[in-house]
Amino acid sequence: MKGVFITLEGIEGSGKTTQVQFLKSRLENLKYRVLATREPGGSRIAEIIRKILLDDNNREISPMTELLLYEAARAQHVDEVIRPALESGAVVISDRFVDSTTAYQGAGRSIDIETVQVLHRIATRDVWPDMTIVLDVPVKEGLTRIGKCGKPDRIEQEPESFHEKVRKSFIELSQKEPNRVKIVDGCKSPPVIAEDIFNLIKPLLSPANLSGE
Amino acid sequence: MKGVFITLEGIEGSGKTTQVQFLKSRLENLKYRVLATREPGGSRIAEIIRKILLDDNNREISPMTELLLYEAARAQHVDEVIRPALESGAVVISDRFVDSTTAYQGAGRSIDIETVQVLHRIATRDVWPDMTIVLDVPVKEGLTRIGKCGKPDRIEQEPESFHEKVRKSFIELSQKEPNRVKIVDGCKSPPVIAEDIFNLIKPLLSPANLSGE
Repeated sequence: MKGVFITLEGIEGSGKTTQVQFLKSRLENLKYRVLATREPGGSRIAEIIRKILLDDNNREISPMTELLLYEAARAQHVDEVIRPALESGAVVISDRFVDSTTAYQGAGRSIDIETVQVLHRIATRDVWPDMTIVLDVPVKEGLTRIGKCGKPDRIEQEPESFHEKVRKSFIELSQKEPNRVKIVDGCKSPPVIAEDIFNLIKPLLSPANLSGE
Repeated sequence: MKGVFITLEGIEGSGKTTQVQFLKSRLENLKYRVLATREPGGSRIAEIIRKILLDDNNREISPMTELLLYEAARAQHVDEVIRPALESGAVVISDRFVDSTTAYQGAGRSIDIETVQVLHRIATRDVWPDMTIVLDVPVKEGLTRIGKCGKPDRIEQEPESFHEKVRKSFIELSQKEPNRVKIVDGCKSPPVIAEDIFNLIKPLLSPANLSGE
């Protein structure tokens, strides 16, 4: 596929969502064709599934059901949005993707990694990030940041120990796949982080990704 | 597990739901502990997922998303309802279970059978029917029956050729696993069918399944 697929990952409050917007604007200013999206969600059906997953009332969702719902939303998102955009040559930036599921449902909920990986393959059918940026911040820092903005959702409400496992899992992923998964210090100021991210992804861009306007 | 797990399967309009009720009443009259349930659904979260699956507005659900949603609902249903009931020694009767997914999503939507089976194993974690009754009726007969009762849902609206694939798949399952999957002629009168089903499942019952009242 001609497109470039970049995913941003990190614990709650790591600043991913801000950086997705920075990166999108910068690439659009450089005349690249860009699609910014998010998980869970990114398509109508996937957003309906997102609501079930994040609804604070749905506390009885079992770990395996949670995992299968994330992958169901992903299958729809990949089929309807990500794959077509990559085929058309766009730069796709997703706020969370498979690595969040590995970290939250695999490490966080203690589901064996083989099961998680089998489901990633079933849901994505070979659509895989070209590069994944993990914004790393201490758990206390991340949770303090989200504490400032409204009621936490079902996942955000997990105890600190859960988020520690998730953070550790992201770091382990970067050690297992150093070429794809890059750690960026999320405690720097947002414009400096934006520069770090841009420098990492720049080598992936090609004239095929320009919007041709 | 001390319980007995019986599933009823068949195409739309095959009469499963009626027979689940007949069987439940008969076993209760004989003082067995009985739990009658259904898929997709059977627990609060699974019923929320059921609504997404059957909603006529959700036509863009991709085959893989559909499969993953069925398995997500199943994982919750097994964990919350079926496994605890079987552990307590009950006779569990489910209106649809894994074989419907094999027939509708595997055969009907042309998803490879290995993927479907991997997902069955992930969702059920070794909870498997002791016996499966397939109520077999010609597709035209089944569709005529449901035509009489209200607006068809997203799955019922599929063309006749889809339902033919599903019917064929159920018959093939009975050939592959003749000890577990039994075909019953769904064109007989309901009381005669009920007798056929009872005679098939009777050998599975034991005093451990009595309610002890």
